[in-house]
Amino acid sequence: MGTTQLETAPETKYWHLKTVIGEALDSEFAVGEILPNERDLAARFGVARATLRQALEQLELEGRLQRRRGVGTTVAPPRMGVAVGAAGNGWPGSSGDAWQPADCTQEIPPAVVAELLGTGADEAVHVLRRSRMYSGQPVAADLLYVPAASVPDLSAIDIPDGVTRARVVLRELQLLGFEGEDRAVELGSARADDARQLDRLPGAPVLLVTTRYFGHGGRTAAVSVATYRADTCRLTFGGDVEFHSEQERRAS
Amino acid sequence: MGTTQLETAPETKYWHLKTVIGEALDSEFAVGEILPNERDLAARFGVARATLRQALEQLELEGRLQRRRGVGTTVAPPRMGVAVGAAGNGWPGSSGDAWQPADCTQEIPPAVVAELLGTGADEAVHVLRRSRMYSGQPVAADLLYVPAASVPDLSAIDIPDGVTRARVVLRELQLLGFEGEDRAVELGSARADDARQLDRLPGAPVLLVTTRYFGHGGRTAAVSVATYRADTCRLTFGGDVEFHSEQERRAS
Repeated sequence: MGTTQLETAPETKYWHLKTVIGEALDSEFAVGEILPNERDLAARFGVARATLRQALEQLELEGRLQRRRGVGTTVAPPRMGVAVGAAGNGWPGSSGDAWQPADCTQEIPPAVVAELLGTGADEAVHVLRRSRMYSGQPVAADLLYVPAASVPDLSAIDIPDGVTRARVVLRELQLLGFEGEDRAVELGSARADDARQLDRLPGAPVLLVTTRYFGHGGRTAAVSVATYRADTCRLTFGGDVEFHSEQERRAS
Repeated sequence: MGTTQLETAPETKYWHLKTVIGEALDSEFAVGEILPNERDLAARFGVARATLRQALEQLELEGRLQRRRGVGTTVAPPRMGVAVGAAGNGWPGSSGDAWQPADCTQEIPPAVVAELLGTGADEAVHVLRRSRMYSGQPVAADLLYVPAASVPDLSAIDIPDGVTRARVVLRELQLLGFEGEDRAVELGSARADDARQLDRLPGAPVLLVTTRYFGHGGRTAAVSVATYRADTCRLTFGGDVEFHSEQERRAS
């Protein structure tokens, strides 16, 4: 019981503090405003800096605060509803595709991707790096893995790595009939290269969306592993009606 | 530039450390095993405890480690694929519903929920607390908000708050024709009551799934706000084929 008490006390403290700071954000600060430094905030609320930091971390998880490199901690704008699924995230390269290709290389995919693709352990596949913008901001980065079998005519075409090759792979992929897709969403932390692309610090919480695209006979034609900013994005599925968060309501 | 360097150096350090520890987890530790304490780990890898702690936090975000109250840090089992959507999460109270009702009260919902429901600012609705189990573990807690207009015959029935009332609300809800649903997924932190129900510490990262259920004419018949454990769950959408993560592969 002693252990539980020791653990519970500081939790309750920063939880309460989080609520108090949240109310202050509503009433005293505007979106984008820089918060006072930790020392001043700790003094204002009469708490230790460690307690303050825990409360700020919670508010960051909830999308209320953003830590920005070289700027400090700012009041976050409302999260954006980003459509995931057929409407906003169609088959790769189709006219409804929200992703912009940036590069294409040939690499051996991670073991988990190779298993989803059903390719051999040391079989190289086309790896397209793509990005998704929303309201002028980069909201997601993805790696699209396309096995050679999905673009059989490509091997005859000699194109160097890069964005042109990415476009050709996507065009060839359109020749394949797609039959469906499925998805998994989980919590992750941003890899260094994705973090750079998304203007985040490495290790920042992200939402990882893994999509399998199925071709004729249920064979996996391609796999996309997309990294969405968890601070600014709310992923929406199905329906055409827009979600509005409490923050959006307050901001409007 | 000076600021960037100051910030980048420790990031790179814990990022590298994270990879090294991840590899040690694969080769030296079994699922469920308790990690040595922070002091010993910091000494082993030759890093400051603050750096070690950052690396452990990243591994926790990625679902590789679990911090458990009164136990310490353990090697996490592979994440479970939990179906979200029609298959595993049908209309509330229907035969395919994965949720067990636990309680029912009448409360004024949060402003954001009232807006989704289209109820008045001070209009009380039925609030059902439900839980979802998976492989014998609680994986999610939800609050299902049902406006009086969706269960018109209920007002004539006098039932005290509690699980019996929850079952009656769900049964009455079945009389309404449902026309569809949509969903949003975002990152959040566990509220104290959800944390208790999910055996997590308050403020732990969670995946918040907000579902709107539409009745005749597109009217919102009910809204569910579900809190999924982000450490143990991977949410799956569409398709009947099972996802297997790299960790599941390693564990099998």
